[in-house]
Amino acid sequence: MSEKFALRGVVPPVVTPDLPDHTVDVASYERLINRMLDAGVHGLFFLGSTGEVAFANDAHRDQIVREGIRIAAGRVPILVGCIDTETDRVIEHAKRAQELGADGIVVTAPFYALGGLTEIEEHFRIIHDEIDLPIFAYDIPVCVHAKIPWKLAIKLGQDGVIAGVKDSSGDDVNFRYLVQANNKAGHPLSLLTGHEIVVDGAYLSGADGSVPGLANVIPEPYVQQWDAFQAGDWARVKELQDQINEVSHIFDVTSGVVGYAGGVGAFKTALNLMGIIDHDTMPRPVRSLEGANREAIAQVLKDNGLL
Amino acid sequence: MSEKFALRGVVPPVVTPDLPDHTVDVASYERLINRMLDAGVHGLFFLGSTGEVAFANDAHRDQIVREGIRIAAGRVPILVGCIDTETDRVIEHAKRAQELGADGIVVTAPFYALGGLTEIEEHFRIIHDEIDLPIFAYDIPVCVHAKIPWKLAIKLGQDGVIAGVKDSSGDDVNFRYLVQANNKAGHPLSLLTGHEIVVDGAYLSGADGSVPGLANVIPEPYVQQWDAFQAGDWARVKELQDQINEVSHIFDVTSGVVGYAGGVGAFKTALNLMGIIDHDTMPRPVRSLEGANREAIAQVLKDNGLL
Amino acid sequence: MSEKFALRGVVPPVVTPDLPDHTVDVASYERLINRMLDAGVHGLFFLGSTGEVAFANDAHRDQIVREGIRIAAGRVPILVGCIDTETDRVIEHAKRAQELGADGIVVTAPFYALGGLTEIEEHFRIIHDEIDLPIFAYDIPVCVHAKIPWKLAIKLGQDGVIAGVKDSSGDDVNFRYLVQANNKAGHPLSLLTGHEIVVDGAYLSGADGSVPGLANVIPEPYVQQWDAFQAGDWARVKELQDQINEVSHIFDVTSGVVGYAGGVGAFKTALNLMGIIDHDTMPRPVRSLEGANREAIAQVLKDNGLL
Amino acid sequence: MSEKFALRGVVPPVVTPDLPDHTVDVASYERLINRMLDAGVHGLFFLGSTGEVAFANDAHRDQIVREGIRIAAGRVPILVGCIDTETDRVIEHAKRAQELGADGIVVTAPFYALGGLTEIEEHFRIIHDEIDLPIFAYDIPVCVHAKIPWKLAIKLGQDGVIAGVKDSSGDDVNFRYLVQANNKAGHPLSLLTGHEIVVDGAYLSGADGSVPGLANVIPEPYVQQWDAFQAGDWARVKELQDQINEVSHIFDVTSGVVGYAGGVGAFKTALNLMGIIDHDTMPRPVRSLEGANREAIAQVLKDNGLL
Repeated sequence: MSEKFALRGVVPPVVTPDLPDHTVDVASYERLINRMLDAGVHGLFFLGSTGEVAFANDAHRDQIVREGIRIAAGRVPILVGCIDTETDRVIEHAKRAQELGADGIVVTAPFYALGGLTEIEEHFRIIHDEIDLPIFAYDIPVCVHAKIPWKLAIKLGQDGVIAGVKDSSGDDVNFRYLVQANNKAGHPLSLLTGHEIVVDGAYLSGADGSVPGLANVIPEPYVQQWDAFQAGDWARVKELQDQINEVSHIFDVTSGVVGYAGGVGAFKTALNLMGIIDHDTMPRPVRSLEGANREAIAQVLKDNGLL
Repeated sequence: MSEKFALRGVVPPVVTPDLPDHTVDVASYERLINRMLDAGVHGLFFLGSTGEVAFANDAHRDQIVREGIRIAAGRVPILVGCIDTETDRVIEHAKRAQELGADGIVVTAPFYALGGLTEIEEHFRIIHDEIDLPIFAYDIPVCVHAKIPWKLAIKLGQDGVIAGVKDSSGDDVNFRYLVQANNKAGHPLSLLTGHEIVVDGAYLSGADGSVPGLANVIPEPYVQQWDAFQAGDWARVKELQDQINEVSHIFDVTSGVVGYAGGVGAFKTALNLMGIIDHDTMPRPVRSLEGANREAIAQVLKDNGLL
Repeated sequence: MSEKFALRGVVPPVVTPDLPDHTVDVASYERLINRMLDAGVHGLFFLGSTGEVAFANDAHRDQIVREGIRIAAGRVPILVGCIDTETDRVIEHAKRAQELGADGIVVTAPFYALGGLTEIEEHFRIIHDEIDLPIFAYDIPVCVHAKIPWKLAIKLGQDGVIAGVKDSSGDDVNFRYLVQANNKAGHPLSLLTGHEIVVDGAYLSGADGSVPGLANVIPEPYVQQWDAFQAGDWARVKELQDQINEVSHIFDVTSGVVGYAGGVGAFKTALNLMGIIDHDTMPRPVRSLEGANREAIAQVLKDNGLL
Repeated sequence: MSEKFALRGVVPPVVTPDLPDHTVDVASYERLINRMLDAGVHGLFFLGSTGEVAFANDAHRDQIVREGIRIAAGRVPILVGCIDTETDRVIEHAKRAQELGADGIVVTAPFYALGGLTEIEEHFRIIHDEIDLPIFAYDIPVCVHAKIPWKLAIKLGQDGVIAGVKDSSGDDVNFRYLVQANNKAGHPLSLLTGHEIVVDGAYLSGADGSVPGLANVIPEPYVQQWDAFQAGDWARVKELQDQINEVSHIFDVTSGVVGYAGGVGAFKTALNLMGIIDHDTMPRPVRSLEGANREAIAQVLKDNGLL
C-alpha cells in the first residue's frame, strides 16, 4: 500500500458464506474469493453491508476478516467495514481490523442517535486521530439515515482525514459534484460507486472504481467494464452494463421478501445454485429464499447462460 | 421479580454522567440515581437511548450497568437496554445484562440492514428462545427506522415472547390501539410510554407506566402524576403535565444544535447547573452545550424555580 | 358568527356521497348531514380531505359546498376546505367559498413546490390579507409533507392571521405544546384535533374540539364524549373513546387497499351498509371496496350493534 | 407531430418570467424562448414545476401557455404540464391544454390523497381514455411523494396509455432499468431525464433526451451535448456536462433559502442579471433572492464568462 491509499478499479463487497450453524463456511469462502481474484478484481471489501457486518457478533466478524485476509493472501488491497453506531464503538472495530491486517477501513456516518453534520465531521476526525489506517467514508443513507454531502467529503479529504468515499447513497447528482470537486482539489479521494446497476454512468463522470455486490456472482463483466473504461471504449462500457443488468433481475423476480432477504438473499441463492457456495444460509433473523423465489432466480441465471 | 414481569409506574431512562475521560462519573451517578429513587420512581432503565447506549463501547456499557445496579441496590426493578443492529449482536449484550443482574432487557427492532415485519418478529422470537429474561420491545422508529405495529406486539405478548412495550414511536393512535387490544387479551403486556410531554394522555388511555427522560431532572412531578392517576384525579394529572412541560422547554430554547446534542445535552446541562452531576461531558462525537445555549437552559430552570 | 370565530365542539369533516356519475348524491347527502346535526354536532367541515376536496374539480367542489350549506340551513357554523397547491390557487377557492356562504375556511401549508417556514408563514399572511373570513390552519403533513410548528401557529394566532388549527399531524407532542402556548397567549386560537382515535387525550390536554371523520358513521358517541368532557367526567370520556375505537376497526380489517381507498372507502362502505348513503361510489381514480373487504366491514358494524 | 409522439433531444422546462403584478412578463418571455429556440432546443415544456405550474391560478396558467405557444410559433413540439392533485382536476387542465394547442401533456402521479400503484395506474388510464393527446408521465416523487416504478411505466407504454416519461425522480437505477426494458419492448416510450447535472450518464444509458431547467440559462451547451451524444463523442458529452455543472453552482452558493426559492430563484436571478428577463419576481408566497445571495450568483456567472 502506498502512502496515499489510491484504490482504483473493481472492489467487490464480499458475501460471507455461512454454515448452517452461522459460522463462516471456509471452503465456500475460498471458492468465492479465489474466483473473484482470478477474474481480476482490484481489491476486496470484507464486512460490508453485503458481508453481514450488521448481523455478525464480534467473534464472527473476526473470523470473517481473518479467513478472508488469509485467502486473499496479499494479492489485492483489503478494506474492512468497521460499522457500528457511534465513534467509540467504531474505534474498537477499527483497532481489531488493524490487528487483523486490513489495508483500509470503511466507516459510515454515525447512526441510531440523531445528529447533524457537526457530529458526522467530528466522528471521522476522531477516528482518523486514533487509527492509523486510511478511512473510506461509506455514504449509505438507506442504512444510517444520514447523508454525507460532497462539500463535507471534500473538506475531509483535503484535510487528510479520509482517503476515499464508497458511495451507496443513490444520489448521482451529489456523486457527480463530488467527482468534479475532487478533481479540482487535486484528487485527494478515491471515489468508488456502490451502485452496481449504473457503474457506466459513474465511470463516465470520472469515478475511481466500483464496489459492486453483484461481482460476487459475475466478476468478469465488471473487470472487463473497468478495462473498457480505461481504454475509453464507452460503447463497450455501456454494453457490459446492459448485460450485467440482465443478471441483476435476480433482485426483482422474487416476491414476499424485502430488503436484505431479497438482496443478499438473491446473491446467496444464485451462488448456491451455481455451485460456488455450499449453503444459502442467511444470518439471523433473515430467512433463506425458498420455493418459487429460488426457481425464479434459477431462471434468470439460465436466461443469462449462468446455469 | 414475579413470574410475569408486570412493571408499572415511572421508570426513568437514566442519564449516564461522564467524566471528562468518557468513563462513568460514579459520584454524580450516585447522586442522580439516589435522587430519583428518593422521589419514588418505580424502576430504572439503564442503557436507554438517553443513557448513551449507542455511544458506549462494551466496556463502558458494562461499567454503566454494573455501577447502576450497585447504586440501585435492589430498591426497584432494573431494565437494561440491549441495543445493537441485529439478533446475534443483541444476544451478546443480553447475556452480559443477565450476568450483571438485570431484571429485564429492552430490545429494539433490528436496524441498519433493511427488513420487514417477518424479520422483526423472528428477531424477538430468537432472543426470547435464547435469553431467560423478560423482554421489553422498544418501539423507536426515529432511531431504528422501523415500526412495531400493535398487532405484532399483541401477538408476541400473547405468545409470551415479550413482557412489555416501551413506546417511543410518537404514534399515539397505534399506542391507543395497543392498550385496548392488550386489555382484551388479558393484559399480557406492560405498556410504558416514552413520551414525557404527553404522559397524561397515555395514562388516560390506560398505559401501565412511563419512561420519561425528563424525570432525571424533575422526578417528583412524574411520581406525583402517577399517584394522581392511581387516584383517578385527572385534573391533577393534567396540571402536573402542564408544569412538567414548562420545564421541558429546555429542549427548544437552544439553537444551532440538533438531535442528541439538544436532547440529552439539555438534560446534562440542566443537571450540571442544578449541581446534581459534576460535568456536562457528552459522549463522542457530540459536543456539550455552551454559551448562550447553556444560559437559555439556566433561564428555563430559574423560571420554574429549579435554580 | 362572532367577531372572533371561536369554534368549539365536534365538527365532522363531511363525507361527500357520490352518484355513479361522480356528481353529488343529494338525497344521501341530506340524510348524512341531517343525521349528524340531529345528533348534536357543533359545526360541519365541507371539502376536507375526507370530503373529496383533492378529487373534485371546481364545479364539483361548488356543488358539494352549495348543497351542504343549503342542507345545514344555518344550524351550525360551516367550514370549507380551500385546498390547493400554492397561494394564488388557494385564494381562488377562498373567494368562491365566501360567495357560497362559508363561515370559515380551512387552508393547508403550501404543497407540491418545495419550501420552508418562510413560505408557510407568508402563505397564510397573504391569504389573510386578501380574504375576509376566519382561517383555520390545516396541519396535515401526511398529505402536504410540511409541518406547521406550534411556535409558528401561535405567532399567526397572536397576529390575528389565523383563527384556529385543525391538527391532523399525528404529532401529539406538538399539539400539547400548542394548547399550552395558546392558553398562555390568551387563547387566540380554536384548536381542533383531527385524530378521531385519541380525542380523549386531546380533550384532557385542553383541545377546543375535534374533527372526527368517523363521526359521519357514529356521530352520537362523539357528541356524548364532548358533553362528558364539558362535565369533567374523564372516565366517561375515555370509555366512549374505547367504544368509538372498536368501530374504527373498519379501517384495519380490509386488505389489499391503501390510503384513501381504505380510509374514506371504509366510511362509504359502512354508511352504505347502514342505509345512510345510497352508493359507495369513490372518486376517480379510487375504487370502491368489494367482496371480502365489504364483508369484513359489515362484520365490524354487526359486532358493534350498528347493523 | 407524428402518430407516435417520439420526442427526442433537449426540451427545456421553460421558466415563467413574471411582472411585479404576477402576470406574465411577455417581453421577457419572448427573449427567453427565442434564445432557447435559436440555440437549437428540440422542444419546449410549459407549466413544468420550473414554470410555476403549482403557483399559477387557472387564468395565469392559460396566459403562460397561450403566450408560450404564440412565441414558439410551431418551431418545436410543445409539452404542457397538467399538474393537479387527482384525476378529474387533471382532466380539466388537459382539456384546456388541448384547446390552447399543446402537442403533448405532462402528468404526475396523483397527489395529496394517499394511494398506491393501483390508483397511479388507473389515473393514467382514465386520462388517456378521455384526452386525445400524448401523455408524458412525470415521475417526481420529491413533489408528489409517490414513485412510478419502471415496470408500471413499461406496462402503460406497451398499452399505449403513455407516450413517454419525464424522470425527475433522482433514482438513476430505476431510470436505467426503464431504458433497458423500453428497448426490449420495442421502444414505446420517449424517455427524458430531468436531472440536468447528470445528463451525460443518462445519455450513456440510452435516454431519448433531457429536460434541463438550467437550459433556460445556458441552452447552447445542452444542445452541443446532445449533438456530441448523437455523434458518439462521449469525452465531449462528459466535458460539456462538467462545464454545465460549474454554472449549476448558482444552486448552492445561496444561504438561508430552501426549495423553490433557491432553485427557480437562482434561474430568475441569473436570467435577470444576464439581461434576459426584466424582473426576478417570484410567485407568491416565494420571495426573490436578494443581497449576498444575488451577488453570489453573479459571481458564479462571472466565473463562467456569462456576465
